[in-house]
Amino acid sequence: MTTHRPEAPALFTERTPRVVAARRLLRRRDREQAGAFLVEGPQAVREALAAGVVTALFHTEAAGQRHADLIAASTAPVSVLTDKALATLTETTHPQGLVAICSTVDKPLPEALAGTPRLVTVLADVRDPGNAGTVLRCSDAAGADAVILAGDSVDPYNGKSVRASAGSLFHLPVVRDVRPADAVQAARERGLQVLAADGAGESDLDELADTGGLVGPTAWLFGNEAWGLPADVAALADRRVRIPIYGAAESLNLATAAAVCLYASARAHRSRP
Amino acid sequence: MTTHRPEAPALFTERTPRVVAARRLLRRRDREQAGAFLVEGPQAVREALAAGVVTALFHTEAAGQRHADLIAASTAPVSVLTDKALATLTETTHPQGLVAICSTVDKPLPEALAGTPRLVTVLADVRDPGNAGTVLRCSDAAGADAVILAGDSVDPYNGKSVRASAGSLFHLPVVRDVRPADAVQAARERGLQVLAADGAGESDLDELADTGGLVGPTAWLFGNEAWGLPADVAALADRRVRIPIYGAAESLNLATAAAVCLYASARAHRSRP
Repeated sequence: MTTHRPEAPALFTERTPRVVAARRLLRRRDREQAGAFLVEGPQAVREALAAGVVTALFHTEAAGQRHADLIAASTAPVSVLTDKALATLTETTHPQGLVAICSTVDKPLPEALAGTPRLVTVLADVRDPGNAGTVLRCSDAAGADAVILAGDSVDPYNGKSVRASAGSLFHLPVVRDVRPADAVQAARERGLQVLAADGAGESDLDELADTGGLVGPTAWLFGNEAWGLPADVAALADRRVRIPIYGAAESLNLATAAAVCLYASARAHRSRP
Repeated sequence: MTTHRPEAPALFTERTPRVVAARRLLRRRDREQAGAFLVEGPQAVREALAAGVVTALFHTEAAGQRHADLIAASTAPVSVLTDKALATLTETTHPQGLVAICSTVDKPLPEALAGTPRLVTVLADVRDPGNAGTVLRCSDAAGADAVILAGDSVDPYNGKSVRASAGSLFHLPVVRDVRPADAVQAARERGLQVLAADGAGESDLDELADTGGLVGPTAWLFGNEAWGLPADVAALADRRVRIPIYGAAESLNLATAAAVCLYASARAHRSRP
């Protein structure tokens, strides 16, 4: 028995209008205008599909074969692109052949803090997209209820940030474009204490943990990777908390400091739920 | 009274042989041949000077004025470069005008583990220089006695790694070019338990902390950022330990996972010294 091989459909190229339009989403301004952003690679696309935010899916022929299950799961329009066209939609050196357009997922502050949040991350003026994405991932792992990108923080839909978040952008409410003071006030109104991570803080993290100071619902406030929290923002917190430094390092970097603080809270919450 | 203004000395350019020779150190092969590497910026140069490993110091005229104290502290030859020449010695977009050639600082394994180490970091096949530098910094902050870059790990003298270490490269013994199995054996011979950070580990980090499992001297074994620890390397450890994941994230990234594990050990050591 011979099978009839249908003529292969024409592939989209980098000049196909839909590809041109998608490519614009590599720029922040166009993302904000469109309320959309790009995710790439099978893991992120799978999470985006599960979150129901994919509005278009692009793949190469080879990726179509590797990830047939994923593509079959898409309710959004699917297009096949040349390798070259797909590469123009990514910022990675080795594109994995799969890119989705997603609707933005950030929430208004009151919605993100609805219910009874117990652990919230507030980033003030965090500029590096890799850091923002890593803190988002780490917040998710530690069981945070929301992440708030306050002040002049980086766009969470920046490609680097999306990649560093490893899917966590789709796992918990993310808030952006709020002032640090408004984030702090909203957290306090929801019954959370506000702790600022601050290398010169008056409270030691371990001592705080040992004396029950981390048992209550907590919003952690983290500052810029280079200059930390401005004094006026740190002053908004109930306490300024320093991570003990046992060696000769001056400080931890933002993402590792956030990991230590968030996991200290998660552990305290777990031991006395 | 008029002062005599001496004729300005000629500035080194990018073609001056000493600058050409220094520039070669941007390449790993040349670093290994020379047993030397570059550090840039006032903070790293200050740490390198304090460590006594600077063999030559280069600066621009502007940086010479900004950091006169640093330059005065150098016992190594100091040369003034054009801005353009100095930029060829750096990998950063905004060079800070100050670059030092340093002798490599890594130690043989037995020397690094001499004395009574209580906390040691072993990285197996870690490839990203930013990650390696960040884990080095975090190990220093947590009071680690040594960091071992085992297996096919990145060169700790890579510019990105040096920058991410934020000076910690000069604060604690760093070992390279050893097999993971040899690092584990050496740690065990020094009386350390060996814990492997492993997302599928049989022990939960918090439970281990709660039951005194972190009180003893510990070497932590961390694997590659993408594929973790190979099974045969994880099997070398006394326990495979998972960091609890409270949210929907699949895992933490390498540097944040290392931060959580190392600080859990530091806290256990502190509470029962």
